[in-house]
Amino acid sequence: MLDLNFFFNPTSVAVIGASDSVGSVGYEIIKNMLDTFKGNVYAVNLKQKPIFGKTCYKSILDIPSEVDMAIIAVPSPFVKDVLEDCGRKKVKGVVIISGGFSEIGEKAREDELLEIAKKHGIRIIGPNCIGIYDNYSGVNTIFLSKEKISYPPKGKISFLSQSGAFAGLILDWTSKERIGMSKVVSYGNKIDVNEADLINYLDEDENTKVICLYIEGIRRGLKFMEAAKKVSKRTPILALKSGTTKSGAKAASSHTGSLAGEDIIYEAAFKQSHVIRAKNFEELFDMAKVLEKQIYPKSDGIAVLTNAGGLGVMTADALEMNNLRLANLSEDTINQLKKQFPERVIVSNPIDLVGDADKERYEIGLDALLKDEDVGLIIVILLLQVPTLSFESIDMLLSTNQKAEKPIIVLCTGGEIVSKQIKKLEEGGLAVYPTPERTARAAYALINHAKTRGDIPGQSKENTGICKI
Amino acid sequence: MLDLNFFFNPTSVAVIGASDSVGSVGYEIIKNMLDTFKGNVYAVNLKQKPIFGKTCYKSILDIPSEVDMAIIAVPSPFVKDVLEDCGRKKVKGVVIISGGFSEIGEKAREDELLEIAKKHGIRIIGPNCIGIYDNYSGVNTIFLSKEKISYPPKGKISFLSQSGAFAGLILDWTSKERIGMSKVVSYGNKIDVNEADLINYLDEDENTKVICLYIEGIRRGLKFMEAAKKVSKRTPILALKSGTTKSGAKAASSHTGSLAGEDIIYEAAFKQSHVIRAKNFEELFDMAKVLEKQIYPKSDGIAVLTNAGGLGVMTADALEMNNLRLANLSEDTINQLKKQFPERVIVSNPIDLVGDADKERYEIGLDALLKDEDVGLIIVILLLQVPTLSFESIDMLLSTNQKAEKPIIVLCTGGEIVSKQIKKLEEGGLAVYPTPERTARAAYALINHAKTRGDIPGQSKENTGICKI
Repeated sequence: MLDLNFFFNPTSVAVIGASDSVGSVGYEIIKNMLDTFKGNVYAVNLKQKPIFGKTCYKSILDIPSEVDMAIIAVPSPFVKDVLEDCGRKKVKGVVIISGGFSEIGEKAREDELLEIAKKHGIRIIGPNCIGIYDNYSGVNTIFLSKEKISYPPKGKISFLSQSGAFAGLILDWTSKERIGMSKVVSYGNKIDVNEADLINYLDEDENTKVICLYIEGIRRGLKFMEAAKKVSKRTPILALKSGTTKSGAKAASSHTGSLAGEDIIYEAAFKQSHVIRAKNFEELFDMAKVLEKQIYPKSDGIAVLTNAGGLGVMTADALEMNNLRLANLSEDTINQLKKQFPERVIVSNPIDLVGDADKERYEIGLDALLKDEDVGLIIVILLLQVPTLSFESIDMLLSTNQKAEKPIIVLCTGGEIVSKQIKKLEEGGLAVYPTPERTARAAYALINHAKTRGDIPGQSKENTGICKI
Repeated sequence: MLDLNFFFNPTSVAVIGASDSVGSVGYEIIKNMLDTFKGNVYAVNLKQKPIFGKTCYKSILDIPSEVDMAIIAVPSPFVKDVLEDCGRKKVKGVVIISGGFSEIGEKAREDELLEIAKKHGIRIIGPNCIGIYDNYSGVNTIFLSKEKISYPPKGKISFLSQSGAFAGLILDWTSKERIGMSKVVSYGNKIDVNEADLINYLDEDENTKVICLYIEGIRRGLKFMEAAKKVSKRTPILALKSGTTKSGAKAASSHTGSLAGEDIIYEAAFKQSHVIRAKNFEELFDMAKVLEKQIYPKSDGIAVLTNAGGLGVMTADALEMNNLRLANLSEDTINQLKKQFPERVIVSNPIDLVGDADKERYEIGLDALLKDEDVGLIIVILLLQVPTLSFESIDMLLSTNQKAEKPIIVLCTGGEIVSKQIKKLEEGGLAVYPTPERTARAAYALINHAKTRGDIPGQSKENTGICKI
């Protein structure tokens, strides 16, 4: 078992290339670390002037205590010497932010680093990356401007990204979407630590329940598949792979130098290792946020409960398009509901509670669906704009969800007023989606992972064909 | 040419079934009309008590002046007599909100209405609908709770919906999304006025530049195709058709009694009549909002300008997946850019301005792309979170766009701080999208409609096969 924990939960960290020049990379990183990291932070800079009133060391070797992890942000020609010093100081891991290596053709410079690291037993993240954000320990090397970026709430989703800029964007975007994040890692040129290492590490991390990946190209395919296959049985892995078209592959090769490869090979590799593929980043996190809740269906039958017929129709479409199945409600469920509902309610699946549905009608419907054996997952569509559906339905839904032994997903959208209610639903632990398609995609992820876990019997057969990437 | 203008711009309107009982349909409608409609509004109610201090008439026949349009919201058994009165009053159009007709099997009741209307030459919208919202004249029969729904800003997008609840939802949702709307019509059982009539009318409406449809099933297919084929040459028509799968079709038949029919037939019909099909409602309005701007490309070559490589790769993918083409930048453009940019900038298409790009680099890029002949459309990707890209780039982009003779679409997303800048871009007239896929879909709509209009040479051949729906 690899232990990369010193990257995420170090006792002490040195920032090499720390700076007090506003807006510089070294400035943003030391500021981040001093602001949020609870352990010891040491500033290292050749100029040796105090930074934010803190002693600044000329070399990491001058630091009087032990250092677990070092963040290196010095120009590329100096990285080699600095790394050698880290070795002598018995640092366990370094994050090399500095660019100027293989991405501009300087491959030899990278090889030197790897040699030094091997000699001293140091693990490397990077170079040419924006590094690590840990929402629990406070390690934060993301050097984007503090005046422009917000950070997400604590959660159990971890995100690994080949692209640094994209990792930064996701941090800011998830802050607005209220998606709870755990760790974000941009690993850049990945000369040492790669996706497979990080996947293995995150599987053991108690703060990670879902792993999301942004990939342009994978170099060591078999190692990746091995890790993914093992981990995905427990922790769901979602991947967004770009560079799938000719135009995209060409762009990827200019961007990270990735050989994007034939998409069909990635597709097969993901299938074999039970990695759920997302078509875009909205979908990646749509799926992640419902998987984070960690209640899995025991049947692949889905029930839809709606007060808006049109949205019910669109949801039925979207489910079938994802190869999902509407549950066959039992005779007992149907009879019971028909007895309790007015005649105009359509007791079918979707159950159309019709336009004048109130909180009670939803309550009766949910109660019956939670008992129906073929129903593994419930999609509740709430058109909150109608006069009869009071906002008390929100509290009812939240308390029902807390007791429920089946996952409930909500489809709800609207303007400012309804958005406040959606926020309440989300903060209460429900995953809410604005469109039928996005809701269906979340359902797909839940059912898919429940099959991988073995929670749903009649598991989809593993593709046993040999695939080499 | 059909003239349905009396529905949208009447001089005087009677609300039959007006009520002062808070929360009732008749209450919401009379309140709406008094609040926003600038013409004369007359309340009609058998009880004949004043409503909001206004005289209430026992019958429409008692109103001392002429009445152009009547909104009927009385129980279904009384609609017939009320309509007869409207006929005698020489009313031109009625919106029948009341339900209780063919949707619950009472087809005969509908036939009676149609007969009366024909006798008097009255046009009918409905029954069983939520009717009309006109953002310019103030006609508003949408009876959703005022405390829960917001209304969108004025714009040039009109939306026709078979589902009333969905029409109401779209009004609320577009308010938050800042999508400018013109007219929204829910036409319910469409016993008289149908999609084709409304499409023909909207084509002549100066406040409509884009027509969006939500359809569960079309009854008179050839009439629809005829109208769409004619209108789409000028005014783009976008359609979201649900009930495309078995599950969806079954749900649609319970919802509006629509025979959803084979999806392949709708697909062919849309193609032949140049209706652009949306996969979901987010996509419907993503496409509509860029078409509303009304600048069309003259070439189908697309250029991408980005400071985030990963997003550039994803956009290149998304464009190719929509059968769109990256422009071949001329040698002149490439040489010019290489001269002006630092070496690390990747002058290809996408042009990757790299992570330290500033406003000037974008300005130089835009200037060159606007001059390049093969570039018909420019996608600007802004990762605003990076330190070097100041918010002044927003003003530069807005002023460039105002002078530009090519459409510019923006891909930008993030947290609260960046969202404020996005709002500024949108209010300044640019269409902004949060993901590569949604951006590409907007580009698809623009290119597709430009081909239909004949702006782009080498127009895609019209499918000439015969299609009957």
